[in-house]
Amino acid sequence: MFTTVLIANRGEIAVRVARACKEMGMRVVAVHSTDDRDSAVLRLADEVVQIGPAAARRSYLNIPAVVEAALRTGADAVHPGYGFLSENPDLAEACAAHGITFVGPPPDVIARLGDKTAARALMAEAGLPLLPGSLHALDTAEEAQAVVDAIGCPVIVKAAAGGGGRGMTVVTRPEDFVRAYHETRARAQTLFGDGRVYVERYLESARHVEVQVLCDTHGNAIHLGERDCSVQRRHQKLIEESPAPGLPDGLAARMGEAAVRGARAAGYVGAGTFEFLVAPDGTFVFMEVNCRIQVEHPVTEMVTGVDLVREQFLVAAGRPLTLRQEDVVCSGAAIECRINAEDAARGFAPAPGVLDEFVPPGGPFVRVDTHGYTGYRIPASYDSLLAKLVVWAPDRDQAVARMRRALDEFRIAGPGVRTTSGFLRTVIEHPLFLRAKHDTSLVSHVLPEPAAPSPTPSANGDAS
Amino acid sequence: MFTTVLIANRGEIAVRVARACKEMGMRVVAVHSTDDRDSAVLRLADEVVQIGPAAARRSYLNIPAVVEAALRTGADAVHPGYGFLSENPDLAEACAAHGITFVGPPPDVIARLGDKTAARALMAEAGLPLLPGSLHALDTAEEAQAVVDAIGCPVIVKAAAGGGGRGMTVVTRPEDFVRAYHETRARAQTLFGDGRVYVERYLESARHVEVQVLCDTHGNAIHLGERDCSVQRRHQKLIEESPAPGLPDGLAARMGEAAVRGARAAGYVGAGTFEFLVAPDGTFVFMEVNCRIQVEHPVTEMVTGVDLVREQFLVAAGRPLTLRQEDVVCSGAAIECRINAEDAARGFAPAPGVLDEFVPPGGPFVRVDTHGYTGYRIPASYDSLLAKLVVWAPDRDQAVARMRRALDEFRIAGPGVRTTSGFLRTVIEHPLFLRAKHDTSLVSHVLPEPAAPSPTPSANGDAS
Repeated sequence: MFTTVLIANRGEIAVRVARACKEMGMRVVAVHSTDDRDSAVLRLADEVVQIGPAAARRSYLNIPAVVEAALRTGADAVHPGYGFLSENPDLAEACAAHGITFVGPPPDVIARLGDKTAARALMAEAGLPLLPGSLHALDTAEEAQAVVDAIGCPVIVKAAAGGGGRGMTVVTRPEDFVRAYHETRARAQTLFGDGRVYVERYLESARHVEVQVLCDTHGNAIHLGERDCSVQRRHQKLIEESPAPGLPDGLAARMGEAAVRGARAAGYVGAGTFEFLVAPDGTFVFMEVNCRIQVEHPVTEMVTGVDLVREQFLVAAGRPLTLRQEDVVCSGAAIECRINAEDAARGFAPAPGVLDEFVPPGGPFVRVDTHGYTGYRIPASYDSLLAKLVVWAPDRDQAVARMRRALDEFRIAGPGVRTTSGFLRTVIEHPLFLRAKHDTSLVSHVLPEPAAPSPTPSANGDAS
Repeated sequence: MFTTVLIANRGEIAVRVARACKEMGMRVVAVHSTDDRDSAVLRLADEVVQIGPAAARRSYLNIPAVVEAALRTGADAVHPGYGFLSENPDLAEACAAHGITFVGPPPDVIARLGDKTAARALMAEAGLPLLPGSLHALDTAEEAQAVVDAIGCPVIVKAAAGGGGRGMTVVTRPEDFVRAYHETRARAQTLFGDGRVYVERYLESARHVEVQVLCDTHGNAIHLGERDCSVQRRHQKLIEESPAPGLPDGLAARMGEAAVRGARAAGYVGAGTFEFLVAPDGTFVFMEVNCRIQVEHPVTEMVTGVDLVREQFLVAAGRPLTLRQEDVVCSGAAIECRINAEDAARGFAPAPGVLDEFVPPGGPFVRVDTHGYTGYRIPASYDSLLAKLVVWAPDRDQAVARMRRALDEFRIAGPGVRTTSGFLRTVIEHPLFLRAKHDTSLVSHVLPEPAAPSPTPSANGDAS
């Protein structure tokens, strides 16, 4: 096993990774920006390195600074968390060049799956069902228009280098397409430094269901069941659960098999997520692969008993999986609510501040992953995820009741601080959610979107 | 189900019960003494009643005050928690007299099992193995001496009305017996208002293993596996785990069957605990029954997925158990550490104070049951249990590693406040504990006992 792990991230996921390291007896090096001097992970770390100023591109996205910190502290592994550099093949390359293990898939796998059109083509070849659309980037408006003419509206224009719900435009009327094409290209260039886009049929009411896979370097690949992440606002997940409730019989198993087939086709290594859409008719289609630990991984941990971050380290160290597919038993139901420091009443505008009071709920089958604590000042520079509140129960109804109790119990207060806790409390009471009849449009029923787009900084990148 | 539950307790167990009530949609009435105005359960309650001054006998042990509060608030059930009135048949009687459901066994069952000699006789009749000793109270020193002469030293003199490790004297030399007999009688009279004592063979090195049972009013009785509570200091439990590690094959199952047989023989109803000793030769003997939820119930919840407090309410409401014995699957390993506000370096003297900092650990498979929060003033009037830190993992080694991490992560500080956290951190590193070769003498190996007995108030009664 590794002796020293550098965690190239911040916030709750840095704390999560540090916990796994401690339990496995590995030293922890925490890095931080000048804005993160109070970060909770620093309290858990054996060594701390300040790697740059608040702006993420100069600290958490700064590959030379991360690698230098790893070399200086003698780290033999780097865990990237999610967002930031987690799906950047250049960090994986740089680590390899210095003999440091990058905890994630090999750089070429990250690169191929990070190109969403290449991933689509690869998965089509592996026999996974896709939405009608293009299998390569569409370099001219004419070429793109031809695809739209063939598949019909509504369509969604997506950035090839995107993912995680960013850089996408839905087009419902054919006459709006060309403009959307050009706008999405421009936005993709800004967001990802890569203006290539592709087009897919857009499903208006669908469930977002994803499969957790785990693959080692010895050719073993398994899945750990599925997660439903249909409760989203503007393609950002708010509530996730496992298992996905109310799917037709056998569907989850077929999606699990498809994900494993796709992972094998990609030469995948480590923990990864295959995202699918499930249409109202019960068919499913592949969307994209996330080459990292996912924000919502705890719900899978709660139903399987498997520590996914631990598994990531074991795989990275070259160990064969000890779990076989038949050993994976999903038991009960788990739900996660993302508590963001945002003001739901003001278009989910970030609402950071100092946590004068921060008392997470506890008791049976309640898990809180957070970097918050009483006295913590939430910096305004990064994404607004403050805590993940996760509950488990023998069945979904009891899990919802437990989540209701846990949300009510969570005490978060401080000047300027607002959270999405109350909003999520409303969402879980919605009859469609309670009956598991909801789809990705649920939040728009609960809360009509404000006219103006809200400023949602997402320095953590495509972390959804 | 009940509409309103009065919780006749304080501290972490009051919070625990309130959580179950909330999840089941029941109103919570919290009672408190004048010293418990800041109690965490008051924040969770729908209604709060101050029932008396700090002295427990005038508040938490005051049956008329509890019943009056229940009547005044329209409570249709009273949950007694552990300690205090939880094993007092008079409260159960008083509730019944007013048409209020007492969440626990019927008064006559509590009374019979509360008399430890009667319980011994009953269990002997049910075929449970006992230590050699008396099956009734020994009213004269001569009668007692005859028992000792028959079974030989070492023996333990116990209060018939005792339990939970209080009111006991170990006698290793025959010539010390008569004095110990009289002293124990006197102490029993003071502690329990009942001077009757009995005598058992004393096992010098044994494991304390107990079985959780659950019985309904329809004649169904099951067990939920066992707990090892061998890590004790002066007969008070410090660390508990489930399953009991390192038992001979089949022993736990036989103990489970014995407990169910005993529960049936007693006409038991609700959640209860059969305490046994396991001798080095792998035989087990019955000790006593605890007629209430146990402090250490969370380890059973973690390995079974069953919410025991919820089950208590369901049984109390007359529902038949939905779990059959074959549905109970114990998976993985759970460990609980009791974090007491005590100064281990000063003979475990109570060390209450104000919690300037109180940040419990979180993350995967960590549960904290506590009434503490940043800013809370621990009153000096009650027992010193501040938090129960419980972890789960697929196996015991991983559970120990997780406990190590969680203990290190727990931040508790404030003027005057000391906790047993560091001491427990030492205990779990002991080679005997790590190899599961320890017995009830472990703590004396880790920490030689100081000469003078420490003042350990235990207003919560026999709550161990």
